[in-house]
Amino acid sequence: MNDCIFCKIADHSIPSMTVYEDKYTIAFMDTAKDVDGHILVIPKTHAHNILDCNEDVLSQLIITVKKIAAHLVENCGFDGVNLLNASGESAGQSVQHFHIHVIPRKSGDNIDAWPHFDGAKEDIEAVFKKIIIK
Amino acid sequence: MNDCIFCKIADHSIPSMTVYEDKYTIAFMDTAKDVDGHILVIPKTHAHNILDCNEDVLSQLIITVKKIAAHLVENCGFDGVNLLNASGESAGQSVQHFHIHVIPRKSGDNIDAWPHFDGAKEDIEAVFKKIIIK
Repeated sequence: MNDCIFCKIADHSIPSMTVYEDKYTIAFMDTAKDVDGHILVIPKTHAHNILDCNEDVLSQLIITVKKIAAHLVENCGFDGVNLLNASGESAGQSVQHFHIHVIPRKSGDNIDAWPHFDGAKEDIEAVFKKIIIK
Repeated sequence: MNDCIFCKIADHSIPSMTVYEDKYTIAFMDTAKDVDGHILVIPKTHAHNILDCNEDVLSQLIITVKKIAAHLVENCGFDGVNLLNASGESAGQSVQHFHIHVIPRKSGDNIDAWPHFDGAKEDIEAVFKKIIIK
């Protein structure tokens, strides 16, 4: 899309710190500087988020995420990763091009990479009955 | 694996609130009761996390995550999802069977589903040079 910053990163019309790329995907440094080694993995073809990403591209994307995770652990001194995604404005999606966040982790890094939820408000079985796929 | 609780959920030898299942994957309610509608999606075959999950299974898993997300948005009154994963003990992985968390979201739910990072400690370009895949 013409006005999409991540499409422009994907086609190199604007620069990024590109960690990895292949035919379908590109991984680059998130410049938020919120946590060391924060990487974004995106499909090169535009999708808004997981909801409209076709299954072939989605498969390529998660395989690239695995490649990045494996590289971080095997070659870069990390021993795990957190993965994060926001799909939809209500979920906090800020850039409207599908992206998965990869946060490299190592023992003792003191990074708190998990949300702090307030606790469920509804009965879990009631929620389950509403969302079960029949 | 004999002692893996998620393998036992996958083969129905212990019960779960199963939202969806197919040949390769199963989705069920997370019983932590930390946030309404919290769902876990797992491969039926054992993998520790994304690092040792084979690519075919990984593709099936993310396609199931998309199905769950689409169902929540199209049929259950939500308008987005957050996805979360911890791969590795240092990342906070608590159950040693690969699982992706799906958090249903809707506008005005006041759920804070994002980590609060302390800020990067290293220079981003220095980190980038260490982790670029050449």
